[in-house]
Amino acid sequence: MPQVNIGLIGFGTVGTGMVEILINNRQLIEDRLGAEIVLKKIADLDIGSDRGVKIDPTVLTTDAMEIVNDPDIDVVVELVGGCDQAMEYVLMAMERGKHVVTANKALIAKHGKHLFETAEQHNVDIAFEASVAGGIPIIRALREGLSANQIKGILAILNGTSNYILTRMTDEGLSFDEALSIAKRSGYAEVDPTLDIDGSDAAHKLTIIVSLAFGLPCRYEDIFKEGIDMVCPEDIRFAGEFGYCIKLLAIAREVDGHIEARVHPAFVPLDHILANVNEAYNAIYVEGDFVGPTLFYGLGAGKRPTGSAVVSDLMDIARNQIKGITRRVSPLSFVRLPAKELSLKPMDQLITEYYFRFSALDRPGVLSKISGILGANNISIASVIQKGRAGHGSVPVVILTHEAKENDVRKSLELLDKLDVVTEKTVLYRVEKKTGI
Amino acid sequence: MPQVNIGLIGFGTVGTGMVEILINNRQLIEDRLGAEIVLKKIADLDIGSDRGVKIDPTVLTTDAMEIVNDPDIDVVVELVGGCDQAMEYVLMAMERGKHVVTANKALIAKHGKHLFETAEQHNVDIAFEASVAGGIPIIRALREGLSANQIKGILAILNGTSNYILTRMTDEGLSFDEALSIAKRSGYAEVDPTLDIDGSDAAHKLTIIVSLAFGLPCRYEDIFKEGIDMVCPEDIRFAGEFGYCIKLLAIAREVDGHIEARVHPAFVPLDHILANVNEAYNAIYVEGDFVGPTLFYGLGAGKRPTGSAVVSDLMDIARNQIKGITRRVSPLSFVRLPAKELSLKPMDQLITEYYFRFSALDRPGVLSKISGILGANNISIASVIQKGRAGHGSVPVVILTHEAKENDVRKSLELLDKLDVVTEKTVLYRVEKKTGI
Repeated sequence: MPQVNIGLIGFGTVGTGMVEILINNRQLIEDRLGAEIVLKKIADLDIGSDRGVKIDPTVLTTDAMEIVNDPDIDVVVELVGGCDQAMEYVLMAMERGKHVVTANKALIAKHGKHLFETAEQHNVDIAFEASVAGGIPIIRALREGLSANQIKGILAILNGTSNYILTRMTDEGLSFDEALSIAKRSGYAEVDPTLDIDGSDAAHKLTIIVSLAFGLPCRYEDIFKEGIDMVCPEDIRFAGEFGYCIKLLAIAREVDGHIEARVHPAFVPLDHILANVNEAYNAIYVEGDFVGPTLFYGLGAGKRPTGSAVVSDLMDIARNQIKGITRRVSPLSFVRLPAKELSLKPMDQLITEYYFRFSALDRPGVLSKISGILGANNISIASVIQKGRAGHGSVPVVILTHEAKENDVRKSLELLDKLDVVTEKTVLYRVEKKTGI
Repeated sequence: MPQVNIGLIGFGTVGTGMVEILINNRQLIEDRLGAEIVLKKIADLDIGSDRGVKIDPTVLTTDAMEIVNDPDIDVVVELVGGCDQAMEYVLMAMERGKHVVTANKALIAKHGKHLFETAEQHNVDIAFEASVAGGIPIIRALREGLSANQIKGILAILNGTSNYILTRMTDEGLSFDEALSIAKRSGYAEVDPTLDIDGSDAAHKLTIIVSLAFGLPCRYEDIFKEGIDMVCPEDIRFAGEFGYCIKLLAIAREVDGHIEARVHPAFVPLDHILANVNEAYNAIYVEGDFVGPTLFYGLGAGKRPTGSAVVSDLMDIARNQIKGITRRVSPLSFVRLPAKELSLKPMDQLITEYYFRFSALDRPGVLSKISGILGANNISIASVIQKGRAGHGSVPVVILTHEAKENDVRKSLELLDKLDVVTEKTVLYRVEKKTGI
């Protein structure tokens, strides 16, 4: 039986998941491939800890270069994380003619262009299904399953930690801090959850998705991002009254030939399928010009789902190797590596609907002042909830707008927050309507 | 630029969708493939009608054999439908070394084994993404995206017509006949909707999915099926009171080493993601041993979504042809064609929870009689709703059971329906709990 030799660099959570699958589903994988995946070496600084998987101790090494330099190894699996060392290993592996499988979203998001060029130069495959949305085969879907379509837009829940926290806040009325504590205790948030809750993790993944969907590398730094740490239960309740929930969305869409890409908490209509994606689940809602709306849903993190994606990539490369080919599908699904990068529509040009919550003194004429300034900046109001008569003088005034320009919105809020009847910084959410992705 | 020549047999709805995509997205397809897909010939008995697509009239022919016998044609797209002629064309095409793309679920479900053997014998590809769930790339997901997993179970909404009708019945309280009329008027049901509403269509698709998931051909005839024509608004309302909705589910799961496969209306918990799949949408909920639960959602029919799947298959074959290979992935995702067929667990061995609605005379002691017979047949009651005091003497008694065996349930209902206090045939639904797929 043909044999594909692999080397694993980074024996952490995902690495352990991958090894578990290769052991537990060995027979299944052989039956599907007609080939054997042989784990020849594992490199990690810690080769002493028991990961709960049965490994021949002679495959372990603390020296990743043993893998990079081993002429018998066909595929290097990079699960080191971070960008510096990982980048070195991956480049060296490709230079030595080895294929690469990685789950490293930051690496692909920040250095994708260079990596894909190197892969082309050395005629090797670089696979990264595990870098976006864990076990959900969304890379394959964009590259192959929906390949006949112009992608019109994507709305995605790409960060399980944030979605878990928002679910707790919505279902139990908790504050952000309370929900975060529960997430940490339940293992859904890391000790330092910054990258998850500030939107960086979702923006990394969106960078990759945008590149695949629109065929041009997209710069991570160009993606607008806001996290969920400012979300409060009051706005979740008001959202509910209007028929929405709040989700951390990663959004990319083509509008009049320009591409928008942004990550922020957004209002999602309760009858949209994404509104029902709760707990730590991820989902990617993709609209193609012919296929229409589709959704891909599953667990976006964890050793088992992410391990599943890594092994599916290994099997893909094995299938190529059995047939004696490489690079059957190009990394970004477009054959020619584009010379230029994607130029995203500037955020202040965004046109969408908005939700504002003003903290205003409970006096006659306040609403008229607020709506006057909005009107003067081309923002028209769709509906208003004014919760009345607080004892302490300040009451929430909640407004949903019709479509307006982000730039006009920012200008208005700046003016409005200076009014003496407005007592706190105004809260803003963008509203994603069901239609017209 | 390399060129892949295709011939289309059957220029109906899906065929027109395919042609539209090849015309509208020609540049995109070339950019993704680095090759051109050339539609060389189209065969249909009707070559006079205007399908709204711009076609060079010289490609049209009424003789399908012109395509089958054309040595320049690399791929035959079979969109004739039915099993007789379609089977002939497909077999002849493969015998002449041509690859085949088909959307014909009945063909694959009934003759899959023979077709796959023929494809192997002639070293050609046979692709059928469009045969299950229209534009949703579920075949690829099972074969490649989730290939590292043992599939534990599948719960799927595979018939858009039924789902549309059930959505109308649920949202508007309509009867089955009223909802069916609307479905016909809106183009969601055909003039003769039998195959859609009696579960046959879903059972065809489940046959294909089961074969892919478990690696053994499954006989269509072995799949238990019940349609939605007996569903009534009363049961939908009671389901809601218990926290469920009613969906036509296609279910396949492994239980203690045996495979269950069945199609019938079922109770689905309202907080399950499948409960939110409404209108004409399809969705396939797949649980793998490592990836956990996943969902694939989209439009399961229509010329544009199904056309999208057909063209994705063409692009897949083109990618193989560019690299000079065939059969990179075997049709059922397992390399060895299995000698035997899958032996399904007999339906009377099924263990699940049940909903019963008895029409009973409103007399003391009725519930005790009913529960006595259920108890004597090992069926224990989880909850009861007894709607009381109808004027006309008969009232509904609604019962949810704990897990029970189908065989015991059938025996009980036979006894119960003979009781003089039971005035009509008892209504039965199977309940799919969220957990333990």
